[in-house]
Amino acid sequence: MFIHNKRLQYTVRVGETNPALASLLLEQFGGPDGELAAAMRYFTQGLAETDPGRKDMLMDIATEELSHLEVIGSIVAMLNKGVKAQLSEAAMEEAELYRSLTAGGDSHTQAVLYGGGPSLTNSSGVPWTAAYVDSRGEPTCDLRSNIAAESRAKIIYERLINITDDPGIKDALGFLMTREISHQKSFEKALYAITDNFPPGKLQGVAPFANMYVNTSQGEGDMTGPWNEGPQWDRIDDLRKVMPADGGDGVPSVKLSRAETAVEKKVMARTASDPASDPQTGVDLGAGPGAGKITGGEDMGAAKDIKHADKI
Amino acid sequence: MFIHNKRLQYTVRVGETNPALASLLLEQFGGPDGELAAAMRYFTQGLAETDPGRKDMLMDIATEELSHLEVIGSIVAMLNKGVKAQLSEAAMEEAELYRSLTAGGDSHTQAVLYGGGPSLTNSSGVPWTAAYVDSRGEPTCDLRSNIAAESRAKIIYERLINITDDPGIKDALGFLMTREISHQKSFEKALYAITDNFPPGKLQGVAPFANMYVNTSQGEGDMTGPWNEGPQWDRIDDLRKVMPADGGDGVPSVKLSRAETAVEKKVMARTASDPASDPQTGVDLGAGPGAGKITGGEDMGAAKDIKHADKI
Amino acid sequence: MFIHNKRLQYTVRVGETNPALASLLLEQFGGPDGELAAAMRYFTQGLAETDPGRKDMLMDIATEELSHLEVIGSIVAMLNKGVKAQLSEAAMEEAELYRSLTAGGDSHTQAVLYGGGPSLTNSSGVPWTAAYVDSRGEPTCDLRSNIAAESRAKIIYERLINITDDPGIKDALGFLMTREISHQKSFEKALYAITDNFPPGKLQGVAPFANMYVNTSQGEGDMTGPWNEGPQWDRIDDLRKVMPADGGDGVPSVKLSRAETAVEKKVMARTASDPASDPQTGVDLGAGPGAGKITGGEDMGAAKDIKHADKI
Amino acid sequence: MFIHNKRLQYTVRVGETNPALASLLLEQFGGPDGELAAAMRYFTQGLAETDPGRKDMLMDIATEELSHLEVIGSIVAMLNKGVKAQLSEAAMEEAELYRSLTAGGDSHTQAVLYGGGPSLTNSSGVPWTAAYVDSRGEPTCDLRSNIAAESRAKIIYERLINITDDPGIKDALGFLMTREISHQKSFEKALYAITDNFPPGKLQGVAPFANMYVNTSQGEGDMTGPWNEGPQWDRIDDLRKVMPADGGDGVPSVKLSRAETAVEKKVMARTASDPASDPQTGVDLGAGPGAGKITGGEDMGAAKDIKHADKI
Amino acid sequence: MFIHNKRLQYTVRVGETNPALASLLLEQFGGPDGELAAAMRYFTQGLAETDPGRKDMLMDIATEELSHLEVIGSIVAMLNKGVKAQLSEAAMEEAELYRSLTAGGDSHTQAVLYGGGPSLTNSSGVPWTAAYVDSRGEPTCDLRSNIAAESRAKIIYERLINITDDPGIKDALGFLMTREISHQKSFEKALYAITDNFPPGKLQGVAPFANMYVNTSQGEGDMTGPWNEGPQWDRIDDLRKVMPADGGDGVPSVKLSRAETAVEKKVMARTASDPASDPQTGVDLGAGPGAGKITGGEDMGAAKDIKHADKI
Amino acid sequence: MFIHNKRLQYTVRVGETNPALASLLLEQFGGPDGELAAAMRYFTQGLAETDPGRKDMLMDIATEELSHLEVIGSIVAMLNKGVKAQLSEAAMEEAELYRSLTAGGDSHTQAVLYGGGPSLTNSSGVPWTAAYVDSRGEPTCDLRSNIAAESRAKIIYERLINITDDPGIKDALGFLMTREISHQKSFEKALYAITDNFPPGKLQGVAPFANMYVNTSQGEGDMTGPWNEGPQWDRIDDLRKVMPADGGDGVPSVKLSRAETAVEKKVMARTASDPASDPQTGVDLGAGPGAGKITGGEDMGAAKDIKHADKI
Repeated sequence: MFIHNKRLQYTVRVGETNPALASLLLEQFGGPDGELAAAMRYFTQGLAETDPGRKDMLMDIATEELSHLEVIGSIVAMLNKGVKAQLSEAAMEEAELYRSLTAGGDSHTQAVLYGGGPSLTNSSGVPWTAAYVDSRGEPTCDLRSNIAAESRAKIIYERLINITDDPGIKDALGFLMTREISHQKSFEKALYAITDNFPPGKLQGVAPFANMYVNTSQGEGDMTGPWNEGPQWDRIDDLRKVMPADGGDGVPSVKLSRAETAVEKKVMARTASDPASDPQTGVDLGAGPGAGKITGGEDMGAAKDIKHADKI
Repeated sequence: MFIHNKRLQYTVRVGETNPALASLLLEQFGGPDGELAAAMRYFTQGLAETDPGRKDMLMDIATEELSHLEVIGSIVAMLNKGVKAQLSEAAMEEAELYRSLTAGGDSHTQAVLYGGGPSLTNSSGVPWTAAYVDSRGEPTCDLRSNIAAESRAKIIYERLINITDDPGIKDALGFLMTREISHQKSFEKALYAITDNFPPGKLQGVAPFANMYVNTSQGEGDMTGPWNEGPQWDRIDDLRKVMPADGGDGVPSVKLSRAETAVEKKVMARTASDPASDPQTGVDLGAGPGAGKITGGEDMGAAKDIKHADKI
Repeated sequence: MFIHNKRLQYTVRVGETNPALASLLLEQFGGPDGELAAAMRYFTQGLAETDPGRKDMLMDIATEELSHLEVIGSIVAMLNKGVKAQLSEAAMEEAELYRSLTAGGDSHTQAVLYGGGPSLTNSSGVPWTAAYVDSRGEPTCDLRSNIAAESRAKIIYERLINITDDPGIKDALGFLMTREISHQKSFEKALYAITDNFPPGKLQGVAPFANMYVNTSQGEGDMTGPWNEGPQWDRIDDLRKVMPADGGDGVPSVKLSRAETAVEKKVMARTASDPASDPQTGVDLGAGPGAGKITGGEDMGAAKDIKHADKI
Repeated sequence: MFIHNKRLQYTVRVGETNPALASLLLEQFGGPDGELAAAMRYFTQGLAETDPGRKDMLMDIATEELSHLEVIGSIVAMLNKGVKAQLSEAAMEEAELYRSLTAGGDSHTQAVLYGGGPSLTNSSGVPWTAAYVDSRGEPTCDLRSNIAAESRAKIIYERLINITDDPGIKDALGFLMTREISHQKSFEKALYAITDNFPPGKLQGVAPFANMYVNTSQGEGDMTGPWNEGPQWDRIDDLRKVMPADGGDGVPSVKLSRAETAVEKKVMARTASDPASDPQTGVDLGAGPGAGKITGGEDMGAAKDIKHADKI
Repeated sequence: MFIHNKRLQYTVRVGETNPALASLLLEQFGGPDGELAAAMRYFTQGLAETDPGRKDMLMDIATEELSHLEVIGSIVAMLNKGVKAQLSEAAMEEAELYRSLTAGGDSHTQAVLYGGGPSLTNSSGVPWTAAYVDSRGEPTCDLRSNIAAESRAKIIYERLINITDDPGIKDALGFLMTREISHQKSFEKALYAITDNFPPGKLQGVAPFANMYVNTSQGEGDMTGPWNEGPQWDRIDDLRKVMPADGGDGVPSVKLSRAETAVEKKVMARTASDPASDPQTGVDLGAGPGAGKITGGEDMGAAKDIKHADKI
Repeated sequence: MFIHNKRLQYTVRVGETNPALASLLLEQFGGPDGELAAAMRYFTQGLAETDPGRKDMLMDIATEELSHLEVIGSIVAMLNKGVKAQLSEAAMEEAELYRSLTAGGDSHTQAVLYGGGPSLTNSSGVPWTAAYVDSRGEPTCDLRSNIAAESRAKIIYERLINITDDPGIKDALGFLMTREISHQKSFEKALYAITDNFPPGKLQGVAPFANMYVNTSQGEGDMTGPWNEGPQWDRIDDLRKVMPADGGDGVPSVKLSRAETAVEKKVMARTASDPASDPQTGVDLGAGPGAGKITGGEDMGAAKDIKHADKI
């Protein structure tokens, strides 16, 4: 059960209102790496977790992330306090209000639609979606996902710190950023407290394919490094060797029943294309009087000629 | 530039058609951990990457994931080959076709809407969204996200292997699963080939908060482990110490201009609630003749009485 | 700041595992009227609220909804406990596992993708989206939205109770349903504790249009009732009176600058359609040898003839 | 069946083109509280409604909302008329066109993607989704949802009026806003014309829980009001009384079969975490030569030191 | 199987960095008509296609679109190269960085969330969704969808060319635009190489309805043209003739079982509205002391009076 | 302005209730090719259209599609009439109701969430999104998109006819399908009534690239046809000729300012990977005691060995 105390986990002191900055900070309220995503990632894992230590840790951190959601949401609410009241009470001339709403970011939507309250969107106004939550119900995956998620959240906070000069906000963002570092450390400890965590899950891989590195991107700039070279790797540079990687013909096949085969023939006959035809097409009808138009460009010069002079 | 060879990276041999199984396999075609998500994750990172080794690796693996997308999509196409033709040609009585479409999974939508072609949806028919792609433009984050993504993809393949008894499909899924293991290894090597990769990004954390573990979930079942105990941790059990964690009062504040303050007062006056009132409400109007109804449950017994006998 | 206690707000006792039922109950975990939507609706309102009484109430109820999210999520986790372990450990023959996953609902995705953990989706697997949260930052709207949301949540719980015969689950659902009734009552009180709450917001309506009822749907079945008849209403049956409702010509217009007018003429000339033409079209090219085909149906009988006999 | 007359329900007279304003007005065309959402909410309810009076009312208002969609869309089309032609005909130097597209709001996408036509997006460019439509097929819910939706639509129109100084647009917005007030009145009448409309639906609540108010958010600022105090309420301040609210232990449980229990043990053993371990982790590997780095912040001062001077 | 060569299909030469322009160009990277949508449209069709010629063509063009995705993504990466590094290294004062991020478009999200890498979003930051891919598994549909998609992609490129004055970018965009023209031509040829491609699919239409044009929008401005007049058309101006178009009563009906009828009566009785009632409503309670308020506007003048003078 | 008549455009006569069939028919109510998508596609085009003939046609067809939305929605409502009442009144034992809801398709969500009313979702429960609407504000594109959309709608109706044996529903679906054929014909006429409609838009292509066909997919199965061979085509089989297609080096470049270059160097140094390193990684830590585990598969046999025998 959750309980709430009206004090924030970190005191929020905002120097002056600024709805455009508020709209950027939404990234950590309703964005993909924001605090709701974090809280829900750990909470959904915690509910299904049966290992008592991990379950406790997941609920601890999920709960703290909800408190962080409250801190970042409170900053947004403070930054929007002016515009919220001004728009609500029509406190300025229309043109002045209009200008104040279109000063930057997506703060216009924050004001018109959300009335200056913190919205669960990212900084472009995209609503939060549970598609951001990648809990999979297997700890050797989920802990890695959590480690990655904390590292992403850390970097977004770092970027927001880099563009904020209000010392009170910067201070609170520094706290929040640091907590992500701390949480990453906890998840790392929990991952490696599972003795055998690689490969994730239970099934081992198929031996011939586990050390194979397929050099599919070739040409000038081909590089080697520990990720494709050394005793752990069998690098394939001649791609014909993996066309296919098994001993087959590389062609997909399925055994159809007799009835299925009969119907398949009917559909193929009905929709057959005639490769020997040279049909007149809608393009031919539509290209206008100039025959050259059929080619879509015959009377054009090189690409560099697409310039203003050709236009009205 | 991309080039395509008509041979698959792994030969697909499907024993018989099965649209319901096809709809489950879509998880790795258009699902969050599927091959399109993988390809696009590495491709978007590769385009912006400037380190030559990592860029090469990202393009190698992105390209291979596209080939995997082709393998899994080909399996789906083979499994759907029967229903595709039967529905297209109306080859069965209506009721029989109807039954074949509603045999399980979300295969009904695969047939009616997508005509038996592989659709970029997950196994519930949810369209793929770029919200699945968590590239952030910072290698110390992105490589961790890639490691996590590969571990998730591995586990989904493992689950699909566990529910498939067609040996040809199982074989191909085993190949695809193993390649995820291999890619995870490459991304791990690339992460640790960056000498100083923790904390991710450039900013260090704020010292007092980096080792703090906040025990926010308490009660029976509270546990310790390497994630919250030991020399690296300062665990907070008395939560009053972090209400707030700084030396402040835990209350959010913002400095308003004089004009903003004046308008704020107006909006507060207009929307003030009267805590001393006892207003009649819509519920009072709507609760019907029985006064007890206002309470919404006065004449009910315990919850266990919500049983069939009370109904028509 | 949020704190968590490991005890649930209501004890969850599940009689036996049932993943298909679990997938239906997700409606109240990650569905549009589920507990996350409720918690986030009130939490976002509470953060921006300045009236102290309403702010306290919103945080109280938001926090309780998080506890309800935990209760419903715990039911789902219990119902999925069997399939989660069986799939993870491959504890059954493939075909048996496959059948158990496709027994009903969207439980297949719950198992394959989410590993049996509670997912933030509705019962069709659609991920939760903040588009469900309709907080608008004006209490005379938001409280009405909250009243409506509670009434929707109540009815979904009622439906779930009607399809569940596990007494422990039914009991917990009865508790959760009743709490929605209680919350609706609180929000009603809070709405009417604002002395002047209609029309919502600050602006009054434009007098001639506020009592007008436009009878736009006519024909057999036209009805009257208190919503369109009586002293508060001026019903318009002759729709010509509101074409337009003002004294104008009902045609949209905009004053263009001279330059805009000139360009407008160019675009109109370029894209003009010739109403006097009778062009050959792609359809004419594609309709095949039978001239009747151009009409798309000349050789067909009445609709009832679209029957199986016409097909292969 | 629907019929259309080319006259608008309200004459649209726009003073001059302004694509940035157009992009804000989209909130009522393709936004969550816009006219399409309104029309579809009532239309879907009307189709399934069996009460003849309500059905008639729902179709009346749904149809009128379509006419409002036409009015607001026509305003947007007029405001965009200049940019639509200029971009289509390349009527200005590139840099000038570029500047005109990035003058504010999300008008850039309106021009580049939608070609100046009204798009079914909100003011941030988010496509309209049926997730906005909360029809639930129970009139005692749906009418409350409709009342709330009308109040939200009213407030968005009010905000748009407050930022618009074009008198013709303001005039039309005033009409549209007033109609929302009128529709709210109709839905209120229809709700209370159902004699017994609370609790919504058929099931009564469970008596002990219907009057309970749980004071989950405590600390300085705790308030009372008619929503939690008085004869209708039993307020719980000592939260231990609802941990849990029933007489149980607050712990979730499920009865597993013998086979399920056996598998559960296997998965727990495989993924057990060792709470007594102190594993080396990826963070330890990645923190670089400085041991202090493991803590993620040892060499940092207070948060206020995250300032520009520390950077390049 | 896919192979990658590090050379682009077209050389990208960007004159200077410009993140706001980059954010507009995203329309063709992750927008609905962008290169990923194109590649996935043809790729999903190609996998399920059985006609060998069409299959080859679809894979050819799908692969080329991936190469175009790489070209447009590389332009975006080049344009963002400055902001990516500056934000990453905090190379400017906070306020300066903040201003550079909010200079136009949705480039703020590109920098803060995506770190300057190309994101799979449109120019408003909306994530790419497979809802853009309209492959239906029937070539007489899919080829028409492909023709339309190419025409849309062409026009978006044209608009981007019209707003770009960097000659290197304009040159590359001209190449990409021209390739869409070329692809449209291929798809037209493939459509008309199917001898009988209209109506699409197998079923013919129902004769009486195939030539009918229903003039549902009437009033001043009613027009004729080849789309509704001439030997192929039977235009219905008197709409009573199609209310309904069949010989029935235009009323929906269903045969209910006896049990269904009985339950239907119960639900109708429970939720019946009383058309003869005149209930007091929540609006009456909430409209404040002024009786006129019930009407929502009695004391207002004409709409034009909604002006600034009425406000604070 | 829209007007509604209570008679349907086509009489709906449903033989018996069937919620699973209803859930499939939703494809044409709230699916991507359904009637709402059609209505909104033409309506948004019509509002911005300035050519009087096309504008009239677009409004005619948009209005008719709304009437079709009403027809298909009425069929769904009739099919759901039984389950709607039964669930609402709890008219059956819980287990019986539960079974009736999980009989096929996604009808469970239709009942539990939408209460048996027609929902704006597709047959998998995915909410309708305006991402389906591809209006672009240029008639030479939009008319092609409309032609394609009508062909897709026709084929979905054909498939639904093929799986429905209720003669009344089949009859209505036949009407709706035929109207799509008719609308396609109108849009074709309107496209070709624009004299010069290819290439779409105003800009011509760049000559050297308009006739080029790039044979990017090679290997066994390479084909020729009118889409890549003949006088209109210049086919490129040697792909080195288009690496790149211009005369450049195929490498993306951007001119950075001196300051940008300096920062770029810093970020490259900070995040440099060391290709000569052989770092220990998280995988090495996590692979457990068996050294072979590092390779992720050493002790595995061929893929075919992933079989049940290896599991518990």
